[in-house]
Amino acid sequence: MAKISRKAESMPASAIRKLVPLADAAKADGVKVYHLNVGAPDIKSPECALEAVARKCREIDHLSYTNSLGFAELRKGMIEKYYRKIGIELDLSEIIIDVAGSEAFSVAMQIAADAGDEIIVIEPYYTNYNTFAQLNGIVLKAVHTDIRDGFKVPPIEEFEKLVSDRTKAVLISNPCNPTGKLFSREEMLQLGDFCRRHDLFLISDEVYREFCYTDEPHFSAMNIPDLDQNVILVDSVSKRYNLCGARIGCMASHNKEVMAAALKFGQSRLCPPVLGQYAAMGALDTPDEYFDAVKAEYIARRDCAVEMLNAIPGVFAPKPLGAFYTIAELPVDSAESFCRWMLTDFRYEGATTMTTPVASFYKTPGEGTRQVRIAYVLEVPELKKALHILAEGLKAYPGRLA
Amino acid sequence: MAKISRKAESMPASAIRKLVPLADAAKADGVKVYHLNVGAPDIKSPECALEAVARKCREIDHLSYTNSLGFAELRKGMIEKYYRKIGIELDLSEIIIDVAGSEAFSVAMQIAADAGDEIIVIEPYYTNYNTFAQLNGIVLKAVHTDIRDGFKVPPIEEFEKLVSDRTKAVLISNPCNPTGKLFSREEMLQLGDFCRRHDLFLISDEVYREFCYTDEPHFSAMNIPDLDQNVILVDSVSKRYNLCGARIGCMASHNKEVMAAALKFGQSRLCPPVLGQYAAMGALDTPDEYFDAVKAEYIARRDCAVEMLNAIPGVFAPKPLGAFYTIAELPVDSAESFCRWMLTDFRYEGATTMTTPVASFYKTPGEGTRQVRIAYVLEVPELKKALHILAEGLKAYPGRLA
Repeated sequence: MAKISRKAESMPASAIRKLVPLADAAKADGVKVYHLNVGAPDIKSPECALEAVARKCREIDHLSYTNSLGFAELRKGMIEKYYRKIGIELDLSEIIIDVAGSEAFSVAMQIAADAGDEIIVIEPYYTNYNTFAQLNGIVLKAVHTDIRDGFKVPPIEEFEKLVSDRTKAVLISNPCNPTGKLFSREEMLQLGDFCRRHDLFLISDEVYREFCYTDEPHFSAMNIPDLDQNVILVDSVSKRYNLCGARIGCMASHNKEVMAAALKFGQSRLCPPVLGQYAAMGALDTPDEYFDAVKAEYIARRDCAVEMLNAIPGVFAPKPLGAFYTIAELPVDSAESFCRWMLTDFRYEGATTMTTPVASFYKTPGEGTRQVRIAYVLEVPELKKALHILAEGLKAYPGRLA
Repeated sequence: MAKISRKAESMPASAIRKLVPLADAAKADGVKVYHLNVGAPDIKSPECALEAVARKCREIDHLSYTNSLGFAELRKGMIEKYYRKIGIELDLSEIIIDVAGSEAFSVAMQIAADAGDEIIVIEPYYTNYNTFAQLNGIVLKAVHTDIRDGFKVPPIEEFEKLVSDRTKAVLISNPCNPTGKLFSREEMLQLGDFCRRHDLFLISDEVYREFCYTDEPHFSAMNIPDLDQNVILVDSVSKRYNLCGARIGCMASHNKEVMAAALKFGQSRLCPPVLGQYAAMGALDTPDEYFDAVKAEYIARRDCAVEMLNAIPGVFAPKPLGAFYTIAELPVDSAESFCRWMLTDFRYEGATTMTTPVASFYKTPGEGTRQVRIAYVLEVPELKKALHILAEGLKAYPGRLA
């Protein structure tokens, strides 16, 4: 029997999706599973986006390729109707439509680093950064942040310690998946200084930009002064407009070499999904009130989640300022065992709650083993039920710490 | 200025798409460009596919992720309504929906081979096999086929010569892009024997399966006896139903390890494009008459193309039995220079014709330098004009061979 490659064999299963079979088994037994495990919001997509697809599908008689960069009309629309409004200036040659944020950061990492090169990340971080690092032989070096400090970015000396002659980039997610951490302007400027001093790329994954819960506007890496040639922006249309299934995102940079390389990667997959591009074009007409309502909804959910979590004896959860995640530390022997047990053993009025163990979001072994990521992607009444079940599960869990 | 990786820098630009800027410049000058360069058919997509998307977009209020494998309903539909009909039996666990054939063969190559490992291909071959080999450090070894033999697969001894302890797979495209070569049942059985003997994966890219112009049915690698654990099928919904922009394809294998690895790759990009999956589900209701009409149309185009090409003094083009390409050898110093010159210099009644130079489809240096790939993707009257312009261009080209 032909043997698969070592690379394929050693590739990690998705930390977020690996418990899905247990959830499926519970559902097959008639159990209702509340999903707080995955960032798949229940918020309605903008009508103008779905309507644009429906209209286009009745206009065309033939769904052909687009340019590898994506429709010029879409890129132009994003520059003029979206990026300009939030203070990011881009030229048409400085943006490529990608198969969601996933393709964008995978390509950005490969443009920044060869096999054996190093990229600095801030732990805990999105686990697929690991996946694409491993697939490409890139080494991730992690600066640690602590749940008890609200995942505050540590002094720049901690970054300096990790720099070697193989260091090529810093990769951040802002607001952060999985912590909900929002980088302050000052933190961004310091990171910018650091990247400028060592001439590193700053790959800034800002797919949750529209999900910020402060009065300050989001400070994009694209607005760090004098860092034009170093910043690679990773963005998502899917996330921004609750169109996760559209699989449309983009990469942007003022660095011409970066964009020339991005085009070559783009050519290798011919073009981004065209129906999703129609949705993205339609989404450009989304009214501001849509975002206001979404923001208000998430603030209510976050407040509910953080309050209920911290009211459970032994649980600690900092209050996140962005995205739709928070991390909670639980009074358990192992968050992974607890998450599995909730799916396989615990039932409360015929239901259970699924969350994601966080240990694999850390690089440092042994960190985060008692933490779970909570995606507050359910309406408040449902969220309350889900968290109530979590609290009841914690009471009953055999591995509960005294 | 931060420097991009050597990998990104040395990555080849698309051989098929690199002349696009010259075509764009010609169009900006008001020149009509006949595109015989890219396999982007003008054939109408099935109405049921586009209508399914439009209907779905008006039913749902929220476009969410699917499972990383794609909708179970789509996979089930493909197994029962498509594969069963053509004699391929698959279980639901043996198929994953991918972001078109492009993702499927890129992942299949990585599942079969580690960096430094070797995959045997038959030259000329689809240039993106090079791209993904290079990105992943995989070495391609090429068995040569000759235009004057109609790209006949050489005796298996030629494959034996290339086997080393790093050889992991044979990768074929059947029918073949760029040659239009259709593998006979006997050729497939011989390749199967070879793979079985050396326990190699047989990655069979069959995205053009519905474009065969013989009375014999297409013989899929999935139907080679006793090769269940070795065959990885690469397929495309986009190509099959003239839905290139949908970016939906699949990978299938009876090998459980292969499919487990494919799922991990799938999780790294979360899910395949959902709107495209709607199109693919709708496309399953495409009536047989659709394919009959498409086939008849392509046979007419092929016959027209091959006849007109061979009527040009000094041109030789074999008659392909599949796909919608043929390769033509031209009486020129360099096919690449000729293709460029057609775009930059030659005008016939305000128009020119774009074709693709083929040298980069060969592994062996110096092979194919006088050949172009012709995609017969225009209706016969347009195709005639395009080929007439090509003939006129050949008369006027300064680098014409005596």
